[in-house]
Amino acid sequence: MPEFLELLTPDEGISRLQQHIEFVEFRSENIRTEKGLNRVIARNINSDEDIPAFTRSTVDGFAVKSKDTFGASDVLPAFFEVAGEIQMGKPANLQINKGQACLIHTGGMLPVGADAVVMVENTQYSNSKEIEVYKAVPAGENVILKGEDVTIGDVVVRKGTKVRASEIGALMALGITEIEVYDLPKVGILSTGDEIIPPHKKPDLGQIRDINSYSLGVIVEKFGGIPKCYPIIQDDKSKLLNSLRQAHDENDLVIVTAGSSASVRDLTADAINELGTPGVLVHGINVRPGKPTILAFANGKPIIGLPGNPVSAFVIAHLLLRRIMPKMRGELRTIETQTMKGKVTINISSAAGREDWMPVRLLEEENNGLKLVEPIFYKSNLIFSLIDAIGLARIAPEVTGLEANSEVEILLI
Amino acid sequence: MPEFLELLTPDEGISRLQQHIEFVEFRSENIRTEKGLNRVIARNINSDEDIPAFTRSTVDGFAVKSKDTFGASDVLPAFFEVAGEIQMGKPANLQINKGQACLIHTGGMLPVGADAVVMVENTQYSNSKEIEVYKAVPAGENVILKGEDVTIGDVVVRKGTKVRASEIGALMALGITEIEVYDLPKVGILSTGDEIIPPHKKPDLGQIRDINSYSLGVIVEKFGGIPKCYPIIQDDKSKLLNSLRQAHDENDLVIVTAGSSASVRDLTADAINELGTPGVLVHGINVRPGKPTILAFANGKPIIGLPGNPVSAFVIAHLLLRRIMPKMRGELRTIETQTMKGKVTINISSAAGREDWMPVRLLEEENNGLKLVEPIFYKSNLIFSLIDAIGLARIAPEVTGLEANSEVEILLI
Repeated sequence: MPEFLELLTPDEGISRLQQHIEFVEFRSENIRTEKGLNRVIARNINSDEDIPAFTRSTVDGFAVKSKDTFGASDVLPAFFEVAGEIQMGKPANLQINKGQACLIHTGGMLPVGADAVVMVENTQYSNSKEIEVYKAVPAGENVILKGEDVTIGDVVVRKGTKVRASEIGALMALGITEIEVYDLPKVGILSTGDEIIPPHKKPDLGQIRDINSYSLGVIVEKFGGIPKCYPIIQDDKSKLLNSLRQAHDENDLVIVTAGSSASVRDLTADAINELGTPGVLVHGINVRPGKPTILAFANGKPIIGLPGNPVSAFVIAHLLLRRIMPKMRGELRTIETQTMKGKVTINISSAAGREDWMPVRLLEEENNGLKLVEPIFYKSNLIFSLIDAIGLARIAPEVTGLEANSEVEILLI
Repeated sequence: MPEFLELLTPDEGISRLQQHIEFVEFRSENIRTEKGLNRVIARNINSDEDIPAFTRSTVDGFAVKSKDTFGASDVLPAFFEVAGEIQMGKPANLQINKGQACLIHTGGMLPVGADAVVMVENTQYSNSKEIEVYKAVPAGENVILKGEDVTIGDVVVRKGTKVRASEIGALMALGITEIEVYDLPKVGILSTGDEIIPPHKKPDLGQIRDINSYSLGVIVEKFGGIPKCYPIIQDDKSKLLNSLRQAHDENDLVIVTAGSSASVRDLTADAINELGTPGVLVHGINVRPGKPTILAFANGKPIIGLPGNPVSAFVIAHLLLRRIMPKMRGELRTIETQTMKGKVTINISSAAGREDWMPVRLLEEENNGLKLVEPIFYKSNLIFSLIDAIGLARIAPEVTGLEANSEVEILLI
């Protein structure tokens, strides 16, 4: 079992785990394109059509031969015979000859012989069959050519792309109504502790309700996984190992929250090591809260051991899953949207060498375009301190605190 | 029909619509708490329990009478008789007398007579029945009192709160396994145009596939609504009115994308005005793309008319729905997470008085901690230009463009 006497930073710990995740092969499935929001494309998608499929007008106006407009101006308009109107949704079965124009709407198909469109604002009917054109147009003006957006064979959406409204729109334009996407990662969640009971039960003295299964489940959901909660496990190694084995078989990632006493934490690491190789990679990271975190990898699947106290489990789950879940989902490029910058109102101290994450409350005031935030000092490690928090402010390991009015990065929760 | 000759800014337009939404009463439903992520609480939730339900230790150590530790130090330890161990998950049926200590784990219930806990690090067994204590503790040290987090009657989660992992955790701690949340707003989406066909069909010359129903559907989903797409409507007022009536009856909000020619746009405004009062509130906003936008309100429900071209519809749907959907969902406080700041690489010009939204591509480089972004100049109004874009950069109406290297707010798409 590789153990590290010097505690790693959270980033170093995550890197060790990610090195193993790199080589995992993810399963994929076919789904209807319109159900694809936030799913990740499993294979490059090529176009087998030209878009547009025909040369179109980009404005309302008159299709013409551009050279017939040469020299046209407000003072000296050019005159055109109106040869007809292009109907929307129909092929343009008209031919434009020298000196002729044809009424066309935005998106209409250009008639044969025309190579430009004069905007309607630059024309006027001189009689029902004739228009005056006040502006010369070069060839291609107000026109989009067949295949100008996409040509047959182009890659339209790349493997590893997280699908947004723009990708869905583009795929629909090509008639691609089904896509291959990676499966959503399944995440097994286990809570341990002799004192833990399910939330629907009334606790006896000395008992508390299970919080972690549910808050972690929702964090998994938020980061794009499918959580599955297992029954609460007593502090007993063989029971823990049985549940861990089952969750490890049935999921792509397992999160286990250990009881909070030191003896029970060791029990968790021992049980994880029996799941397979390489086993525990990191035991303890230099962070507060959440120091007794375990990062492990066994038989192709990551396992995360979190401290039992709900605030620590909550904070570390955010730190880890925001980085690990995109990889487990097959994303090749992730845009971080769950952070904001703010300014702290008061000094916050921290130990050098340790990364601290402090819950902060958002104030209404701003300072130089940054919102003010105020730390929430909590005592009991109960999750109620997080209801008022907008997020977690990071105090980097290389500093011994944050001074009042300094800028801080906040991980939104 | 109230029409405005001077074009409003998008913000002014949205305000007019929101004044009407203020008075809408939203329906609610009861759901299981663990299914509550991103739902909005419809009624203040009070606690009917004290949390913690019993006085607990926050560390591993020994429960003592604090006054017995008076003067204890490394040099002069205090001695205590070990009276037993508190079992996790059980009532502490022990009594501590003067000079006695009791082994206790994090979260364990304090025995009668104890008022503080000495951390295990500050103790040592002198024999199997006795410990030395090296540090004096005041009353209340390492202890969280019954009811210190939450007392019976406290409001734990307020009406209008968007539910996150922290709320779900806190509710579970209280045994609140069911919550009353507002219904998700249903949004009817209509696409019109003689040239539009469903995406699974092969277009004839002059026809194009429906993009808007799907990209708008996904934008609605992203902002927390339930989209419902209706069959494509031809450019015919009575057909349009029939479909609008049905969508207006069946949904909380209706979005209709009009054909792109001027005549068809007027047809949309006329049809909307027949749905009820007050009808069209805003016809045209000073923005690019998307000027021919319609904002309306009829019989208690908003109606949005968008330009038919997919980029315009896409941009305006983002601008409007990010502001309107949280209101329709009953949110009383919304944290904006869909924006980032960047720096533009080149000059971008814009007309004074008009708000421009320019798709931008994210570059790898940074400048003073801000990511560089590059505008995407697009020609055809097809949605493919948005696949490369990370978001839309805002050029405010009061400026005539952005200079290279200036800071810009980007709405992520």
